[in-house]
Amino acid sequence: MAKNLTTRSEDYSKWYNDLVIRADLAENSGVRGCMVIKPYGYAIWEKMQAELDRMFKETGHQNAYFPLFIPISYFSKEASHVDGFAKECAIVTHYRLKNADDGSGVVVDPEAKLEEELIVRPTSETIIWYTFRKWVQSYRDLPLLINQWANVVRWEMRPRLFLRTTEFLWQEGHTAHATKDEAIAEAELMLNIYTKFVEEFMAVPVIKGIKTDSERFAGALETYCIEALMQDGKALQAGTSHYLGQNFAKAFDVKFTDKEGKRDYVWATSWGVSTRLIGALIMTHSDDNGLVLPPKLAPDQVVIIPIYRNEEQLADVSKVAEQLMTELRSKGIRVKFDNRDTHKPGWKFNEYEFKGVPVRIAIGPKDVENGTVEIARRDTLTKELVPIEDAINKIVALMTEIQENLYNRAAQYRAENTTEVSGYEQFKKVLDTKGGFILAHWDGTNETEELIKNETKATIRCIPLDDENKPGSCMVTGKPSARKVLFAKAY
Amino acid sequence: MAKNLTTRSEDYSKWYNDLVIRADLAENSGVRGCMVIKPYGYAIWEKMQAELDRMFKETGHQNAYFPLFIPISYFSKEASHVDGFAKECAIVTHYRLKNADDGSGVVVDPEAKLEEELIVRPTSETIIWYTFRKWVQSYRDLPLLINQWANVVRWEMRPRLFLRTTEFLWQEGHTAHATKDEAIAEAELMLNIYTKFVEEFMAVPVIKGIKTDSERFAGALETYCIEALMQDGKALQAGTSHYLGQNFAKAFDVKFTDKEGKRDYVWATSWGVSTRLIGALIMTHSDDNGLVLPPKLAPDQVVIIPIYRNEEQLADVSKVAEQLMTELRSKGIRVKFDNRDTHKPGWKFNEYEFKGVPVRIAIGPKDVENGTVEIARRDTLTKELVPIEDAINKIVALMTEIQENLYNRAAQYRAENTTEVSGYEQFKKVLDTKGGFILAHWDGTNETEELIKNETKATIRCIPLDDENKPGSCMVTGKPSARKVLFAKAY
Repeated sequence: MAKNLTTRSEDYSKWYNDLVIRADLAENSGVRGCMVIKPYGYAIWEKMQAELDRMFKETGHQNAYFPLFIPISYFSKEASHVDGFAKECAIVTHYRLKNADDGSGVVVDPEAKLEEELIVRPTSETIIWYTFRKWVQSYRDLPLLINQWANVVRWEMRPRLFLRTTEFLWQEGHTAHATKDEAIAEAELMLNIYTKFVEEFMAVPVIKGIKTDSERFAGALETYCIEALMQDGKALQAGTSHYLGQNFAKAFDVKFTDKEGKRDYVWATSWGVSTRLIGALIMTHSDDNGLVLPPKLAPDQVVIIPIYRNEEQLADVSKVAEQLMTELRSKGIRVKFDNRDTHKPGWKFNEYEFKGVPVRIAIGPKDVENGTVEIARRDTLTKELVPIEDAINKIVALMTEIQENLYNRAAQYRAENTTEVSGYEQFKKVLDTKGGFILAHWDGTNETEELIKNETKATIRCIPLDDENKPGSCMVTGKPSARKVLFAKAY
Repeated sequence: MAKNLTTRSEDYSKWYNDLVIRADLAENSGVRGCMVIKPYGYAIWEKMQAELDRMFKETGHQNAYFPLFIPISYFSKEASHVDGFAKECAIVTHYRLKNADDGSGVVVDPEAKLEEELIVRPTSETIIWYTFRKWVQSYRDLPLLINQWANVVRWEMRPRLFLRTTEFLWQEGHTAHATKDEAIAEAELMLNIYTKFVEEFMAVPVIKGIKTDSERFAGALETYCIEALMQDGKALQAGTSHYLGQNFAKAFDVKFTDKEGKRDYVWATSWGVSTRLIGALIMTHSDDNGLVLPPKLAPDQVVIIPIYRNEEQLADVSKVAEQLMTELRSKGIRVKFDNRDTHKPGWKFNEYEFKGVPVRIAIGPKDVENGTVEIARRDTLTKELVPIEDAINKIVALMTEIQENLYNRAAQYRAENTTEVSGYEQFKKVLDTKGGFILAHWDGTNETEELIKNETKATIRCIPLDDENKPGSCMVTGKPSARKVLFAKAY
């Protein structure tokens, strides 16, 4: 167990926070609720971005960039958006500083007050739809498939690194279509892309579903989501995709002329994932020894550590290490050779274990003599001596093996922590003792959903999009239910 | 000449603005001074980012992310920074909206006033150095080589797309070193990386130099810069790299312990380039027919346009086109086949010419019959019929040829528009009649620099870092001058 790391069983929330900080992923800044993403954490985000961006582009989406600031009046244009959207926003009211009279530094210049206040974007539907009006004239301009990588700000009273921060990084897709069906297909396509990314790259299994009325995005007609289960039995929403109907098109007057010359409002979607995914990645795989990263997203997939007592030994070991590095790199594996003389091998072993590097290779003089290397896996914490001629194949195979093992382990944990219940008493008991995902019948009303939430703090994470559509009766009211829905306490 | 595009000789500034908008690079938004970067413009920025990011990483830099907001008090910590830095900043004073009493939408909640105002970062030295204090303890933590890709905000009273916008995208490097020499070497290294990028990828020749006292970055001991010459004879600063000495380390108390156990402040640099580079790219190469892009940064390097009258002809032409595409892609060339039936070939020819695609290939039934394709170059506006079997080699060669031609053309323009003068009257005459870069002797004082600026609007762009260090006497005062310096009117 890593020195001084709080264990998960002691205090899951403290374990998470300590881990994020000690693994050099992120830290709190001097600005309340805003984090600094440190190089190691940012490198993981870059890997995520690269894969998602590739998937977006392969499906015809283009990146663009829209202003950080949104005039306050734009927010009032779409009624349900303004009603439903959280009001915790950063508001710019002035545009100039001046030197303080007492020479102590700078102060706000009261004469530089804006005529209309600007909101730092909490999401960009309004400013983007204001812009789309100019971009869409005819069916030839559709579909309009736009994505933006950006920072957004939502004032957080109880911030937590990655999971809930005042400023966070994300991508937001915004699309316009000629028909309702196309828009719905787009929202579903993006949900599938998110699912593929989260499952195949993050090795985090998710449940696809749709949100209930009360949990739907402000301004959407349907919110699709993917829900993951964390190690403490709480759910985390890993991505959402919204079918927006014609709401924003009507609010911002975005019409197009179809092939027959008829004018109609366009149909819309929006969808996003954020740096919150890094929180999900950590809370799915990591352990009491530190971070565990899936090979596909690990900034370093393999680290080689030389063991030596003198320069001559280092030279021998380095020769083997460099040969290995070259071959691994030619196979597209990200490998690092840590030959710093400022730290001892034991320190390095701990360091890379803590930072979740999937594979560690140690090479000492004995290994050079015997033609072996020691290969250690982070996921299982096992190690073995491997003949040098087998090392490359072994390591290449481990990349897949570790990736799959992490996914399977998480899927098994989820299976063990998903409970189908029939009665409300059983529901409450499972929630108190075991937590996790709970499948139960619900009568489809806001009232029952609200009652359950108030009494148990569990919410309906989604109405799953699987084929298990067996009807029954609501665990609370006994009224008819079309199918069981997914409950959990959530992040 | 492209229809309705203002020509450069008519009105350079209007030509630029019309071009940016009509080539779908960017447009003004509903927020004064903030632009929307459209997909085509953003694709160019992504190419720039990818190359720069690779160069930064190859030289050991790591990306990280720091908060968008900076507490106002941070700004007051480094005296020359606060004095010298422009005060036009966006200031966040409130953190919550509320529904308006009259139901008309949202208004600022006056009760949600921040105790300390937050500045939307105009540059991040202060918040980064506040953070570095926690990251640097010993010489083992140095050098600290950090880069950030981010949006920044500087309120602009006279905004121009890409060149001067209230919000812009950039990268800012911030590094900490154990010695003064290392920090200076870093500042110079980054200047060289910028030079390499701008010259080799943007095909824009630059002059490397250092800024005079009055043009130096607020808080820097030395500002290195690269200066490019635009087609209207005005200079554009394409990148800066600052040697900051120990100023920020002292302001934010960032000390380290060296190998001997001694404590000292660290030495710093910062450096950045922004979306302004897109403006430089446009103003260096484009013409009265529209955009001209260097192959290395063109989102599409080659476009293939089919000419056909019926489905059968389209099928024949498409077969040739698809074969070409496959082969070009295997050579790493970005190629697009525009077989849309919504637009005619003539429209497409104009479109891609206007958008600066370096090479256009047209294939018609005659070509299929004769085994030829028509290859047109955007830079020279020439075209030729090429046997299909030579097409791939020809196009691959054109990528280099066009890239070099653009650079050479710009270098020649610069040579023709760089004038060495000896007297002040000659200086003023050249400035009025010809513009461009002017090399002249200057006595090294702020007073003379200021006088020249006030009388002519020309500024010292830099003291060039070349070997032409011939002494002389100042063109204004006659006092001794160590070498000629570079003057120009500037963007």
